[in-house]
Amino acid sequence: MERTVVTRTLNGVAVDKLYETIEEIKATPHLGSFKFRSRNRWVEGGRNQSTILNIYGAGEEQPARSEPFVLDADEPALLLGTDTAPNPVEFLLHALTACVTTSLVYHAAAKGIRIESVESRTEGDIDLRGFLGIDPTVPRGFQDIRITFKIKADVPDEQLEELCRLGPTFSPVHDTVTRAVNVSVNLDRTA
Amino acid sequence: MERTVVTRTLNGVAVDKLYETIEEIKATPHLGSFKFRSRNRWVEGGRNQSTILNIYGAGEEQPARSEPFVLDADEPALLLGTDTAPNPVEFLLHALTACVTTSLVYHAAAKGIRIESVESRTEGDIDLRGFLGIDPTVPRGFQDIRITFKIKADVPDEQLEELCRLGPTFSPVHDTVTRAVNVSVNLDRTA
Repeated sequence: MERTVVTRTLNGVAVDKLYETIEEIKATPHLGSFKFRSRNRWVEGGRNQSTILNIYGAGEEQPARSEPFVLDADEPALLLGTDTAPNPVEFLLHALTACVTTSLVYHAAAKGIRIESVESRTEGDIDLRGFLGIDPTVPRGFQDIRITFKIKADVPDEQLEELCRLGPTFSPVHDTVTRAVNVSVNLDRTA
Repeated sequence: MERTVVTRTLNGVAVDKLYETIEEIKATPHLGSFKFRSRNRWVEGGRNQSTILNIYGAGEEQPARSEPFVLDADEPALLLGTDTAPNPVEFLLHALTACVTTSLVYHAAAKGIRIESVESRTEGDIDLRGFLGIDPTVPRGFQDIRITFKIKADVPDEQLEELCRLGPTFSPVHDTVTRAVNVSVNLDRTA
């Protein structure tokens, strides 16, 4: 007997699989527990390199990628680097904007909304007096971050705002940055 | 008249320039105000691409990089992507770890501490029930992030902890993630 399997895809997202995933995690909540990881090695000055290989999720260690993703970081000359790669705060803006975009696209797909295009520009303010330890009352990190989206989608114009809000509402990186998350930094003294 | 200019460098950081920068910003605080930026374009499904080009800092718009840095994001197959690039939360771990590492190295250089090597591994926990909207009490983002450093440096063993702490103490991304930062997301309705 022949069987035709049709995978329903919207915005490039396999919507049937998305619903399936939601039902599986509803039924077995621990399947939703994920661990994401990176390793990093300092090179010189402001240069260092991360490798990203494997994920724990859906109740088990997932097969590692066949090759790790390699990400370089550097600093611009103005910040005493060699400008061979984005700097860490620029990577944060990418992580944030990429996550808000993906969250918007996935949740639009789940709602049956077809998206034509999404573009955005992101800007964030940092006062170096924090990092340099000049003024302890100045935050070291971003004081404010602004993302501006242009979206073309199959919704009436007055629903564009609501569609746009799906991004920050569901984005894990947006949540991480706008909530105070615990980060523990420890020293491994083994040889 | 001949003049010899010796640039003192430690850990690959131009220490004289670092002190000079500190003095300049102390004298003229607005020189410390920086704006970092990215632009992003959705490709399909979980794929999107950022370009990173220019920075405002030291009181003026800095010359743009001759070519923008291009960063791709995707999702692993388990999260309905095509796994061609790290996903946004993995980029966040890279941003965080790279920043803590650079902060450690720069501040060690400022203190005259020679560093031989820095390696780290980073892991963070996310419960997908947040992102999927299954349980509104579950955070969408990281619930906890752990970074473990191995450091070889020219300090007595008992000062390694103190050296390690320079990273999280001064890192802009560490500060951004552990403090609740305002992120505004707006819609641009111009054509």
